Amino acid sequence: MSNEKIPLTILATGGTIEKIYDELEGSLQNRDTIVRNKIVEKLRLPWTEITVKQIMAKDSLAMDDKDREFILSSLIAHERGNNPIVVLHGTDTMDLTSKYCFDKHPNISVPVVFTGAMKPLGFDDSDAAQNVIEAIFAARIMKPGYYVTFHGKLFTVPNFRKNKTKGTFEEIT
Amino acid sequence: MSNEKIPLTILATGGTIEKIYDELEGSLQNRDTIVRNKIVEKLRLPWTEITVKQIMAKDSLAMDDKDREFILSSLIAHERGNNPIVVLHGTDTMDLTSKYCFDKHPNISVPVVFTGAMKPLGFDDSDAAQNVIEAIFAARIMKPGYYVTFHGKLFTVPNFRKNKTKGTFEEIT
Amino acid sequence: MSNEKIPLTILATGGTIEKIYDELEGSLQNRDTIVRNKIVEKLRLPWTEITVKQIMAKDSLAMDDKDREFILSSLIAHERGNNPIVVLHGTDTMDLTSKYCFDKHPNISVPVVFTGAMKPLGFDDSDAAQNVIEAIFAARIMKPGYYVTFHGKLFTVPNFRKNKTKGTFEEIT
Amino acid sequence: MSNEKIPLTILATGGTIEKIYDELEGSLQNRDTIVRNKIVEKLRLPWTEITVKQIMAKDSLAMDDKDREFILSSLIAHERGNNPIVVLHGTDTMDLTSKYCFDKHPNISVPVVFTGAMKPLGFDDSDAAQNVIEAIFAARIMKPGYYVTFHGKLFTVPNFRKNKTKGTFEEIT
Repeated sequence: MSNEKIPLTILATGGTIEKIYDELEGSLQNRDTIVRNKIVEKLRLPWTEITVKQIMAKDSLAMDDKDREFILSSLIAHERGNNPIVVLHGTDTMDLTSKYCFDKHPNISVPVVFTGAMKPLGFDDSDAAQNVIEAIFAARIMKPGYYVTFHGKLFTVPNFRKNKTKGTFEEIT
Repeated sequence: MSNEKIPLTILATGGTIEKIYDELEGSLQNRDTIVRNKIVEKLRLPWTEITVKQIMAKDSLAMDDKDREFILSSLIAHERGNNPIVVLHGTDTMDLTSKYCFDKHPNISVPVVFTGAMKPLGFDDSDAAQNVIEAIFAARIMKPGYYVTFHGKLFTVPNFRKNKTKGTFEEIT
Repeated sequence: MSNEKIPLTILATGGTIEKIYDELEGSLQNRDTIVRNKIVEKLRLPWTEITVKQIMAKDSLAMDDKDREFILSSLIAHERGNNPIVVLHGTDTMDLTSKYCFDKHPNISVPVVFTGAMKPLGFDDSDAAQNVIEAIFAARIMKPGYYVTFHGKLFTVPNFRKNKTKGTFEEIT
Repeated sequence: MSNEKIPLTILATGGTIEKIYDELEGSLQNRDTIVRNKIVEKLRLPWTEITVKQIMAKDSLAMDDKDREFILSSLIAHERGNNPIVVLHGTDTMDLTSKYCFDKHPNISVPVVFTGAMKPLGFDDSDAAQNVIEAIFAARIMKPGYYVTFHGKLFTVPNFRKNKTKGTFEEIT
């Protein structure tokens, strides 16, 4: 505990949260990460040094176990830095990816918080900023392990699932 | 742990966070609480049932120990509900009020999270929404006790102070 | 000229400007008009009484001459009210529709201003609000006839076309 | 008429529209002009080349005839450029300043459009962006002369006044 800045890495993998509107095509696409410009730079985080790394740009419905292995290997590579990690990920298979990491590497030594959004961050009523604020906050205070923050609630991996009808996540009880 | 909604009370006391621009006078004033319309209703909180109660509308520089006693008595009244509490408060004497409550009633049985803002919530680059999102999130997951959330960091009462030059809070080390 | 409110009708036909994000499907669709909630109600228009009527909900690439005839018949029906009209329309065939109306009914007795957007109105960097503000303003001050407002410029029908590469409209010189 | 960019100068004089919140003092002040960052750069103006010049930073209640003479001399200096001019000005004495210019130099050879705002441009529900969009639009299409745009309406100088109760401008009938 002190007044030093804590480094925190955001790993961007794509998903609805980072879909960008292409004006020529008139559709939403995963391309470059824009979470820094659109969210992180608008926050006040005097005690957190955030690095954003894009490791993939996929809709999570298009991910397979090769992608999940790659995400896990990125987590392990960044685990050495001994700092908290936030993973931006599509909501549709966030449960699969986080469980994959949890099963293969349960004893991760840093807090890893997955989050995403129901509505892309470019929309004025997107839930992206809220979820990212919660993820950064949780990543700083939780013990090592795998978590999800979404819509004001903290979930532990693998005890959650998406509720498509309600448009949110819920606990598996 | 379950999928039920948790009730959470926001006690509004005034402060910069809720200052409203009066177009006739051309100045910022503490009047009615607007945190519900301007922040809470824009968030997605399917698992949190938020009640906002305005108990005061004061710049915290104008508060005295009578006001602090009144805030504490409100906390005690709401403590019976056994639900987390967020207190919106001016930043200038947030340390005094939270320490007052901590000293007089250290064993509070619910989490109480104070927060506020450097810039009123009506500004497009206000830190109010970020701080409130963090406070609601922290109030749901912390153990009973007194806390402050501000700019991505969790502080425990009374181990913090405002750093006016930096425009944020810091730990007392 | 006086201090009475002028009635003004907005006819919504669909187009990018009013595409809405469907969270279940993850795509943008033309459904109900939202220009009133998302733009008009946020403007200050003490001297303009705005009525929004949705007459269609189509991407303008999907419009044919039957649709154009229907838009023209709506214009003629509202022309009797003797008040200015704004038409929200997709950008891809705004030239075709406005020229269709101009050719078939050149002597319209009220100002008719077409506008649309390159980015749907729900995005935080959409050009929709700007274009609508310009269209309402132009509709109040121009003489009867057909116009387009877009990105700060007034065009007269049929002397304009879309420049897809630049993502805007230009004059035909 | 063509597809060339038209130069347009915005002369900033202060007023509510450009008041900035000072977080240390907790009050609103006229300092540097921020209309470029906060409004102009967010607009799409492919056919307008905007230059912003700050010539003063005063609440218009604090202006006297010396200030008005200085504003008029700035207008005359920029008149030589033969391009439209927008003047950002406090609302309380916009009638006095615009009438001063009109009386002393009635035959100005370019369109001059005064505007301002009831709520500073930093607020999320400010009328500043709307008024500036209208002013830029009007300055491009009106004949030489003095005008005011405000809340969707075009006024000609000196036939308008502020209605403080309604928080807008109205015509003098």
